[in-house]
Amino acid sequence: MKRHVYLAMKGLEEAQDIFSRVWQGRRTIPEEKRVEDALGRVTSEPVFARISAPSYHSAAMDGVAVKAEETYGATEKTPKLLKIGRSALWINTGQALPEGYDAVIMIEKIHQTDDETIEILSPAYPWQHIRKVGEDIIATQLLFPQNHVIRSYDMGAMISAGIFTIMVRKKPKAAIIPTGSELVSHRAPDAYELVKKNRIIESNSITLSGLVRESHGVPIVYDIVPDMETDISAAIKKAIDSDADLVIINAGSSAGSKDYTANIIGELGEVLVHGVAMMPGKPTVLGVIKGKPIIGIPGYTVSAVLSFEQFARPLLLGLQGLTPPKDRVISVKPSRDIPSKLGTEEFIRVNIGRVGDRFVATPLPRAAGSITTLTRAEGIIRIPGLSEGVTQDEELDAELLVDDEELKNTIVVIGSHDITIDILGDEIRREGKNIRLSSGNVGSLGGLMAIRKGICHMAGTHLLDVETGEYNISYVKRYLKGIKASLFHLVLREQGLVVQKNNPKGIKGIADLTREDIVFVNRQAGSGTRILLDYRLSMSGIKPEAIRGYDNEEFTHMSVAVDVLSGAADCGMAICAAAGALDLDFIPMDREQYDLVIPTAFLADPNIRAVLDTIRSENFRDRVSALGGYDPSGSGELKMEIF
Amino acid sequence: MKRHVYLAMKGLEEAQDIFSRVWQGRRTIPEEKRVEDALGRVTSEPVFARISAPSYHSAAMDGVAVKAEETYGATEKTPKLLKIGRSALWINTGQALPEGYDAVIMIEKIHQTDDETIEILSPAYPWQHIRKVGEDIIATQLLFPQNHVIRSYDMGAMISAGIFTIMVRKKPKAAIIPTGSELVSHRAPDAYELVKKNRIIESNSITLSGLVRESHGVPIVYDIVPDMETDISAAIKKAIDSDADLVIINAGSSAGSKDYTANIIGELGEVLVHGVAMMPGKPTVLGVIKGKPIIGIPGYTVSAVLSFEQFARPLLLGLQGLTPPKDRVISVKPSRDIPSKLGTEEFIRVNIGRVGDRFVATPLPRAAGSITTLTRAEGIIRIPGLSEGVTQDEELDAELLVDDEELKNTIVVIGSHDITIDILGDEIRREGKNIRLSSGNVGSLGGLMAIRKGICHMAGTHLLDVETGEYNISYVKRYLKGIKASLFHLVLREQGLVVQKNNPKGIKGIADLTREDIVFVNRQAGSGTRILLDYRLSMSGIKPEAIRGYDNEEFTHMSVAVDVLSGAADCGMAICAAAGALDLDFIPMDREQYDLVIPTAFLADPNIRAVLDTIRSENFRDRVSALGGYDPSGSGELKMEIF
Repeated sequence: MKRHVYLAMKGLEEAQDIFSRVWQGRRTIPEEKRVEDALGRVTSEPVFARISAPSYHSAAMDGVAVKAEETYGATEKTPKLLKIGRSALWINTGQALPEGYDAVIMIEKIHQTDDETIEILSPAYPWQHIRKVGEDIIATQLLFPQNHVIRSYDMGAMISAGIFTIMVRKKPKAAIIPTGSELVSHRAPDAYELVKKNRIIESNSITLSGLVRESHGVPIVYDIVPDMETDISAAIKKAIDSDADLVIINAGSSAGSKDYTANIIGELGEVLVHGVAMMPGKPTVLGVIKGKPIIGIPGYTVSAVLSFEQFARPLLLGLQGLTPPKDRVISVKPSRDIPSKLGTEEFIRVNIGRVGDRFVATPLPRAAGSITTLTRAEGIIRIPGLSEGVTQDEELDAELLVDDEELKNTIVVIGSHDITIDILGDEIRREGKNIRLSSGNVGSLGGLMAIRKGICHMAGTHLLDVETGEYNISYVKRYLKGIKASLFHLVLREQGLVVQKNNPKGIKGIADLTREDIVFVNRQAGSGTRILLDYRLSMSGIKPEAIRGYDNEEFTHMSVAVDVLSGAADCGMAICAAAGALDLDFIPMDREQYDLVIPTAFLADPNIRAVLDTIRSENFRDRVSALGGYDPSGSGELKMEIF
Repeated sequence: MKRHVYLAMKGLEEAQDIFSRVWQGRRTIPEEKRVEDALGRVTSEPVFARISAPSYHSAAMDGVAVKAEETYGATEKTPKLLKIGRSALWINTGQALPEGYDAVIMIEKIHQTDDETIEILSPAYPWQHIRKVGEDIIATQLLFPQNHVIRSYDMGAMISAGIFTIMVRKKPKAAIIPTGSELVSHRAPDAYELVKKNRIIESNSITLSGLVRESHGVPIVYDIVPDMETDISAAIKKAIDSDADLVIINAGSSAGSKDYTANIIGELGEVLVHGVAMMPGKPTVLGVIKGKPIIGIPGYTVSAVLSFEQFARPLLLGLQGLTPPKDRVISVKPSRDIPSKLGTEEFIRVNIGRVGDRFVATPLPRAAGSITTLTRAEGIIRIPGLSEGVTQDEELDAELLVDDEELKNTIVVIGSHDITIDILGDEIRREGKNIRLSSGNVGSLGGLMAIRKGICHMAGTHLLDVETGEYNISYVKRYLKGIKASLFHLVLREQGLVVQKNNPKGIKGIADLTREDIVFVNRQAGSGTRILLDYRLSMSGIKPEAIRGYDNEEFTHMSVAVDVLSGAADCGMAICAAAGALDLDFIPMDREQYDLVIPTAFLADPNIRAVLDTIRSENFRDRVSALGGYDPSGSGELKMEIF
């Protein structure tokens, strides 16, 4: 099998340096724009005022226009009388100063003695309360230098100064070429059908188009090109010969047998970098063809985003004379040690929440193909190539992906996964509350540990005490000893076996799990579901070793259900709602209590109280009931406080 | 004359509270959008995944697909051989796992013995290196709650999850009604002609439109309505009955005789607030007609912007379920005491620059009608109503109007005004340097004081020592005693008398200033031009009292020239370029040295060095020469260092 190798891999900064030399100093050509359409655009020439503003002397106050000389000598003891129409004229703010007049007296300083006469008690000095010609802008004055980004009031200033059109940098164009024989366009009428036949809906071009727009560029998305060297080469040639300022080819930038990007760039032009010591984003190709920069962007979505931001964004902004704005950064403490590969700059997506007085960052999975690790992240921690990782005692900078105000209103829920937590998060937004739920699935015991470590606001838990038959209480007492915490009931829910639609293998209950023809999928140790299963197995005298797939662990109910749906397993234990969501069959076994643990100190927090209010609302309960397998009648009840 | 009075004026926060009650909880109706067109839009419903991603099991690595069971027992000592095509199939990252296979072995772990056989040294466990169905997204899972702002990768996630259209909040519409008989549209073919006849080009609707767009709204700009109560009333009625979510009327919101806004709103609906204790922005009217919010926004541009930001912006964002992002704030020290009116919240526009290790804020003029106090500002300092001002020893928060990165690259030039400073600022941008010049005009002595106080990087100065005939040196020595500073030559320039075109009054020189028929305009005390004038007067034995207008002071050369142009004065002393810019005549008197003083410590700063490089460049000198009246042959030469 033919495989390529990476050229000597480059460090991130070195790769950026090498690539930027291709376009450094280059600018898009200027274009003319009406000022009112120039918001956010970048001037390509200095802008000089054409007329002065104000363009005539005008009253700066409501009052009367006077001739200053005629007011001299007026005092409180020797007031002066002025005849309206001859020595004084009523004037409103902004009105032109009448010919021959040179001062304005404010209306508050005037005493009108009759219809034709006013009395003044002090003299006016020349030009008082008058906006003189050019007081704000003087014709010919420099309004804005070149390379200036136009703001709303800049547009107003230009119009005032008689500038109605300006020259701005053209928005740079980025050609985006999606490649891959397995890809299908979401615009294809049979997209949903093709997905069932092992095709993937092409989505990176949509993400990359958005990123191009956010860099004030114009994306030009090409049709999907199959993994054929000649087709890809033809598409690249077309893009290079187009008016695009940058060509992005996605993907085929790795070193697999069908990864043609580097080869083709090498044939048509020059490969500058193949492989960057960053993760995700390693299989990036940077090159130049006929003087035009081209980036081979990796196929995994997160890699694609990070590669774009490191290489394409500075280029698109640079062509407009802009530099990337500094990342919004916040100081965080990781909730656990984060090891990292030496020699590679790692971008770890993290959930961030303010718990107590510090911002805690919990790493999301590192899978570069998982776009939800980006959509669910509040920030990114960069671990430099020279580091082997960070420990949970370190203060780190995290680049923010959300507004920092939003971050302060993020409630971190770590623990067992339940679908009602998602419903809760949405219901809070529906009510118009400015609160986000950020949830991490680590199982019930993991949730209690997270409370103990002070890295979350709430933990979802459903731990059966096999001796008392009670849920959660003894665990909370044992694992949170010394911590004041409150246990709130969230829902009662059905646990059972998820089996394939119509139960083709005729599974009736736990006794069937030892059958030779049955593959089971388990939940991870420490999860409430696992504890329940192990309890049921021991009650039935079944040995775990007797179950095929007992060691195959998933972290959520939904993952278990998906394994069953996809045929990776015949059954698994999960909540009823998971089976319902994927239209699978369900064999009920237990009704368990799913509760929320909240440190009592947090109950004073208005956001926590608002969440509890939502939990107790009619609307929330109705939505939960509709899922099936839930009983929310006691939602939000305080079960216990521990000290 | 009919005048109205403000209703009891309201504090800013109280006014915001009262007004927000009109629209609080209201939302624009939802509309359907294709996902790729939804960047930045706000979800009006939760978004659930329609399909799982990946939608089939696929290889997570390049290598071979195997059946895990067939690999058991392989060790380094007892390797296993697998037949390609029967027990092992080549597979690339992302390719579908073939039916019957359940693991992938990385290519790096494989030894190919011949074309048909590979050797493995360790077993594969089931599902290793496989991206399972739903690993990233599981069908039915909540992707985004409602009230979520769509980012680039959110679009990609939705496409991957089979969501191609979503429901988002409609962008709110804001009707903008410009009023004023003196206004003329910049689109009028005779706009430039009308400006000469005391008409003003309407610009606020352009500024407000930009602000509406920045709040993700759609501006609908009405034709200009003259100051007639019936016309304004008709326009308001039309806007209220339109599909606009907010009506903005600009201006007529004050209490002058032609300020109809409050009256009309009162007649058609209800005035909630008339007059807000903020400055600028006091004459704001807040009301409601037929349940629709209406804002009477003041006419002065800066007032209009601030009033919009306090009242319209939260509304437009709120209708989309958004809250205004927190202002970007920086801690600054004012360069001088800033008094403020008790009982009024003041918004002081300031220039900000990092000088040494602190950010220094220098107030710009407070004139609400001066839009350049906004366009030139780097930030805004808010002085609360309960304060009488701040002192220069206080640390204050300034809301930033520019990027903070930009702020670090801002060079603050305070001192005498010269047009070449503007040219310098533009030339630096043209060269692509990421440096901004922020200049304040306080005269030459003021500049030296600014250096002394450590509130600027450079000071422009042209101070004649009447005893030695030398420029600047003795002043720098005297006023900067104890400070290490370097004096660089910028330009030689012509000073003289600016007179009207064709010199109708036949002014020949300084001796004419005492003529009865001549009105002079002076520069402020402490400016180099004033010192030069006073020196020339004393040499000629002319008493200042003998000159009409000697006490009439302007702060820049250009203001002096404008006074001459507008007829407010017959002549004034200024540089040749000021006369040239406004096409006035010029009577040369002196050739003076305009220099830059820079604290020597700053010469190590790469930005300062870059500015000096530009000063010495051919291009800069050419542009300065082209202005007329300048000799830049020695530009950038170091004249002196003092210790």
